[in-house]
Amino acid sequence: MTEHSTDILIVGGGPGGIMTGMTSAQISPDKRITLVRPETKVLVPCGIPYIFGTLGGTDEDLIGELPFLQAGGELLVDRVESVDREARTATLAGGDRIRWERLVIATGSRAFMPPIPGADLEGVHTIHKDYDYMDRFFREVVAGVKRIVVVGGGFIGVEFADEIAKRGIEVHLVEHHPHVLSRSFDRDACLQVQAHLLDAGLQLHTSVRVQALEAGPDGAQVGVVRLEGGERIDTDAVLIAAGTRPNVDLAKAMGLAISDKGAILVDAFQRTREDPEIFAVGDCASKQDFFTRRPANALLASQAAAEGRIAGMSLYALHAPRFNAGSISVYASQVGDLAFGVAGLTEAQAGKLGFQVYRGESRMPDHHPSTLPGTHEVYCRLIFAQLGGRLLGGQVIGGPTSGEILNAIGIAIQMRASAADLASFQFGSQPLLTASIHPIVGAAVNALANHFQNARPAMGKKEG
Amino acid sequence: MTEHSTDILIVGGGPGGIMTGMTSAQISPDKRITLVRPETKVLVPCGIPYIFGTLGGTDEDLIGELPFLQAGGELLVDRVESVDREARTATLAGGDRIRWERLVIATGSRAFMPPIPGADLEGVHTIHKDYDYMDRFFREVVAGVKRIVVVGGGFIGVEFADEIAKRGIEVHLVEHHPHVLSRSFDRDACLQVQAHLLDAGLQLHTSVRVQALEAGPDGAQVGVVRLEGGERIDTDAVLIAAGTRPNVDLAKAMGLAISDKGAILVDAFQRTREDPEIFAVGDCASKQDFFTRRPANALLASQAAAEGRIAGMSLYALHAPRFNAGSISVYASQVGDLAFGVAGLTEAQAGKLGFQVYRGESRMPDHHPSTLPGTHEVYCRLIFAQLGGRLLGGQVIGGPTSGEILNAIGIAIQMRASAADLASFQFGSQPLLTASIHPIVGAAVNALANHFQNARPAMGKKEG
Repeated sequence: MTEHSTDILIVGGGPGGIMTGMTSAQISPDKRITLVRPETKVLVPCGIPYIFGTLGGTDEDLIGELPFLQAGGELLVDRVESVDREARTATLAGGDRIRWERLVIATGSRAFMPPIPGADLEGVHTIHKDYDYMDRFFREVVAGVKRIVVVGGGFIGVEFADEIAKRGIEVHLVEHHPHVLSRSFDRDACLQVQAHLLDAGLQLHTSVRVQALEAGPDGAQVGVVRLEGGERIDTDAVLIAAGTRPNVDLAKAMGLAISDKGAILVDAFQRTREDPEIFAVGDCASKQDFFTRRPANALLASQAAAEGRIAGMSLYALHAPRFNAGSISVYASQVGDLAFGVAGLTEAQAGKLGFQVYRGESRMPDHHPSTLPGTHEVYCRLIFAQLGGRLLGGQVIGGPTSGEILNAIGIAIQMRASAADLASFQFGSQPLLTASIHPIVGAAVNALANHFQNARPAMGKKEG
Repeated sequence: MTEHSTDILIVGGGPGGIMTGMTSAQISPDKRITLVRPETKVLVPCGIPYIFGTLGGTDEDLIGELPFLQAGGELLVDRVESVDREARTATLAGGDRIRWERLVIATGSRAFMPPIPGADLEGVHTIHKDYDYMDRFFREVVAGVKRIVVVGGGFIGVEFADEIAKRGIEVHLVEHHPHVLSRSFDRDACLQVQAHLLDAGLQLHTSVRVQALEAGPDGAQVGVVRLEGGERIDTDAVLIAAGTRPNVDLAKAMGLAISDKGAILVDAFQRTREDPEIFAVGDCASKQDFFTRRPANALLASQAAAEGRIAGMSLYALHAPRFNAGSISVYASQVGDLAFGVAGLTEAQAGKLGFQVYRGESRMPDHHPSTLPGTHEVYCRLIFAQLGGRLLGGQVIGGPTSGEILNAIGIAIQMRASAADLASFQFGSQPLLTASIHPIVGAAVNALANHFQNARPAMGKKEG
């Protein structure tokens, strides 16, 4: 056994771990930073669906560790077996021990496998964020899968289904809610995405659950997906995309407090309850909802990266109080050439939390004049709190700039912009790059107008 | 003579006028709105350069009046000759008179012609935002221009030069500053754009002024551009792109106060000094700089549109105090497939105003993994105030999403975000739509790190 020594020890090499390393290398350049991860190669998590279509290979979807190494970080491919909080050491699977000053737990999450009978058959897969596993799955697909059933119509299921269909494979998508993406989007937006999936030739099975997976003629390989109600889909493979759960094995063994949602409890600076020198970031760390201060559970690479930045800036001293009190959802996707996404709350989510809202919508070409080549229509919906008019959320459906329009909405939510702010702000417009009336502005003005018209009769009544 | 009556009379049909009309139609749907403009067809102002290349025709670059008409607005093609403030009437060129309750002056700007000898020769043009003028110019170009000299390397000059070069025309661009775009961009960004222009085959003449235009063999048509220092460029046509000046003829005749910069003096709600029921918006209206409260003079369609929205919401009642105290620059452009732009202040501008700043930079692919097709590199630079760390400006050079990244920076400036806010915020990331580390975030973290490293030795000295 050898005993090494470092200043900052990061356990886990996904977006949260890497971002903690890259940020702390900039903020604390005099500190030694060691990142331990079990994987030789690490996949870009949100790129996984694209391995099966656009990218065409597992090696095309790797997180580059070069920026971290160039910033002075050290990488160890090994597994942290245990941590001794008293002695400030971590023991690796190979037996070596590492002494640390600050510890960052970034152990991520694991795919959730719902208890479906037959889920242990060959040819039944999930999205493990593991290079070897996904590479085997990819090679199996290439070798001869002609039909596949995707169980779960969230972002990952939809992206995977759309991508793998590009190989000419027959794709069935099974979703137990009435629409795909219904946890993330309001109904009409879901319907627009579904229309695109149908156009792309996918077969949708909504409002129905999978009852069991059955073996094919050889008794070992999956052959049939049986749905509730009796429908049977013949298939060569199944992908179960039912979300992920925090991986907190190490944290539990260390005696760290775990939240109701199964994540390591951390404060606004990603510090654990028990020890201000032990941090947790990413899918394994607890989150708080921006709007209500309640526990939240968005397991997203972008969220993990944001937390890694906060931890990386806070390891040795706190600098600025965080302007926001928690996390919001900001995510986007694309099906065919239709991009779509959400930032903050949907109307349905806002209603559930107890908000009263008003809404504004806009729909316009993303170039101007719209005679320019490459013009897409962009639809934008914003919702605002009835009293005070703060922006609560936005949905965008459109062309390639939709992701950045959503990021702009995300900034506006996190800076607590109101409808009046957004309606009066300046936005740049350029023929090739943007709409003539910015979608955010169009929706904000429309929201104010709706709100004002609705408010006036009530005011009239009071006077009469 | 007939006397009509309306509630809201808008004089001018450019972006400021149209946007006032569309906004007030939503906020005050019970009011009659009449827009008078002299032009039968109105050009999208920032689309004008594209007439000569990508669009390939003047009729492809028209502002649609349909949304205004559908919102219930009325359009009169006529010219407002005079306004009687006492009688609340406007007299049209045709002799008719219109009675109004609220008046909005949106008379725009006119191209500025510097006093260059020979500027009155045939074949010498400028950017008049006038359909008939630009259509004649376009037809002349199509009919046989083989060589053109563009005088002025601002956004319009650069865009026009890049576009017209697509016709296979020999293009010379003359700029008296050392670099094109130097009023808008810091030096290294200018150099990147220049490299692209040279790649596209344009001939650049920088740090040199035009001395005179000379006639060709027929004595009437321009044939030579003579530069200071003696260089002579043979040419078939010349475009002078030397900016625009507010058109305030009507306002002057009405006795309204005009600013030092030649614009109608208005308050934060676009109301004129003299009369809270008379508004001015767009290029003809005065502007105040967001950062210093000094007079500003960005004559941009997007600025005009923002002012139109504010006027449209404020005609009959003020609703919300404006969150910001003035205007910022947010604009973008594209040369070849290189998009670039600026929001807020450049480092040079900030220095001139008296700011002490720190800077952060990031450079990364706009898709992730970068093996995805359509990936461009994005460069982002942000500057922050030394004390307090508020965002003052950003520059972006990259792919098709650059315009929306700049709009996000614009929101952050107008919401007074700090480097710490931006570094800790969440941003969405999606393989096909965004970078893995958002350019704004990368630059904000880099800025904080730079600032922190520089601050520490000074703190150390104090202690020692």
